[in-house]
Amino acid sequence: MAKVAVLGGGGWAIALAKVLYENGNDVTLWSFLQKEVDELTNDRENKICLPGIKIPEAIHITNSMEEAAKDKEMIVMAVASSYVRSTSKLLKPYVDEGQIVVDVAKGIENETFDTMTEIIEQEIPGVEAVVLSGPSHAEEVARNIPTVVVVGAKKFKVALKVQNLFANKVFRTYISPDRKSIELGGSLKNVIALAAGIIDGLGFGDNTEAALITRGIKEITQLGVEMGGNAKTFYGLSGIGDLIVTCNSKHSRNRRAGVLIGKGYTLDEAVKEVKMVVEGAVSAKAALELARKYNVSVPIIEAVNQVLFEGKTAIDGMWELMEREQTNEYRDLQWDE
Amino acid sequence: MAKVAVLGGGGWAIALAKVLYENGNDVTLWSFLQKEVDELTNDRENKICLPGIKIPEAIHITNSMEEAAKDKEMIVMAVASSYVRSTSKLLKPYVDEGQIVVDVAKGIENETFDTMTEIIEQEIPGVEAVVLSGPSHAEEVARNIPTVVVVGAKKFKVALKVQNLFANKVFRTYISPDRKSIELGGSLKNVIALAAGIIDGLGFGDNTEAALITRGIKEITQLGVEMGGNAKTFYGLSGIGDLIVTCNSKHSRNRRAGVLIGKGYTLDEAVKEVKMVVEGAVSAKAALELARKYNVSVPIIEAVNQVLFEGKTAIDGMWELMEREQTNEYRDLQWDE
Repeated sequence: MAKVAVLGGGGWAIALAKVLYENGNDVTLWSFLQKEVDELTNDRENKICLPGIKIPEAIHITNSMEEAAKDKEMIVMAVASSYVRSTSKLLKPYVDEGQIVVDVAKGIENETFDTMTEIIEQEIPGVEAVVLSGPSHAEEVARNIPTVVVVGAKKFKVALKVQNLFANKVFRTYISPDRKSIELGGSLKNVIALAAGIIDGLGFGDNTEAALITRGIKEITQLGVEMGGNAKTFYGLSGIGDLIVTCNSKHSRNRRAGVLIGKGYTLDEAVKEVKMVVEGAVSAKAALELARKYNVSVPIIEAVNQVLFEGKTAIDGMWELMEREQTNEYRDLQWDE
Repeated sequence: MAKVAVLGGGGWAIALAKVLYENGNDVTLWSFLQKEVDELTNDRENKICLPGIKIPEAIHITNSMEEAAKDKEMIVMAVASSYVRSTSKLLKPYVDEGQIVVDVAKGIENETFDTMTEIIEQEIPGVEAVVLSGPSHAEEVARNIPTVVVVGAKKFKVALKVQNLFANKVFRTYISPDRKSIELGGSLKNVIALAAGIIDGLGFGDNTEAALITRGIKEITQLGVEMGGNAKTFYGLSGIGDLIVTCNSKHSRNRRAGVLIGKGYTLDEAVKEVKMVVEGAVSAKAALELARKYNVSVPIIEAVNQVLFEGKTAIDGMWELMEREQTNEYRDLQWDE
């Protein structure tokens, strides 16, 4: 039995705490908000994010970072991506050199373009920052529906340890050294999910949407490879896999926001309607800036940006994509004659 | 205006004949069955395969292969995959060296493992055999819903010509030299669609299905690469793209058959219920034999075969996949330490 902590009180935090508890670990759940700690302690449930899922009594819930972080074999960072930096600052005083911190938030920081593990490493020098990602709705994980994820770490030994703590019969856990691609795929895919929603909102068909997803993941992969990642990872669980589950889900905020935009809403109106952060819109900007920096052609990401931020109508953006020069599927595949 | 012919009277044949006609070509549609020719001529519609879509009056419909095939710039082979060999034999006497024949049927021949363009080349020496594939429900193409496909040919010049004849604002046409991978991806993906259906029929979740699709396309890609194909193509329109549209479609025979098998039907019972050929079951056998020949590990394809042909229950097959050793996502990605 290992002592582990999960930082965050949302659906994903609770689902992962449950996995770790059911694997026989001693689990502490931390939330920044005393009010949330009180509710979770009293109700043993997050009635908004994960209704119907009971938090086992043996999981200790606390507002004290010291209590949560001290002497833990692994700490899971399950706060929203915009809080990863501030939570890392809170965590720093209580952890030693070599502490394993597993990030499960997805995103790229505005302006710095840092990934979440990079932020954690900056704030907590000497940390072993790891990512866990893949097609994993919290609602399904919490209900023990078979799920497969990938754990990315710099060191094999660290990846193995995290795998050992998480893996079980219904939570299959692969490992990978390609941490950066796992993180890039996991956040950039939201741009494509948003674009897929726009296609749906415009009333186009399954053919159109499948083509957009396929060409979209190609753009993300090209960008990721230029940034030093491995193409395979983008075609793996954290890229294509997560994109498939996002696009199939009617609950995805990114997809829902896209559908509304396809129907003529502005981004602001869509965000108001969805009532949550639409990460795909944030990532769309970052993706375009990165593409320019690394000199990668990303017509779909460009069109999404024009529709979101420059007043282009969704239908015009769509037709401009269809009317581009019709060329090779992959420019680098050679013709014999 | 070019003279072109489409062989076949089904939904895909009619949809593509319509695309070619709307691009300003002189189109002849051929069916092997006089009865079908009569019906199509009288009704200007295939009421079973593509109800509600009128065949333009200017498209000439015939039962004579001579009339269909003679002096055409391009002939489209749009018969079911099991008839590609016999139709090629019928076609041979009427075409000259260098005739462009574009196959749109998907499949691998039993026992020979030949792809459709390979069959056409064997039966019609000197032919320029081309494939056109991608996420393309005929119902949507016939209704001018934006669709994106890929044309695979050995020669750049030939690919360009086919692209020129097909491409328009709603039928975006990429070209590629990787003909074999396009064909392998297009037929092997049906095995994964069937497996995805099984997961659904078992009552598992979106997480499980996305993971299975992702790991399934990895198996197909590894096999294809061993057979001389390019991994990128499997991650392109004819692979991932077509798989996404198949898995999203409630109409896919492969997916529907899988759902029934997941619910406990035998393959025979499922085929009876679906009332059509389930290509994924045929391809499953071919895929497994090819994997053994090329020494590629394909646990999902193996499990599908055991469930289809060896009496293993779907639920046992599923759990055996989840209980395999938990290892690296990609064995060839290197750890620094």
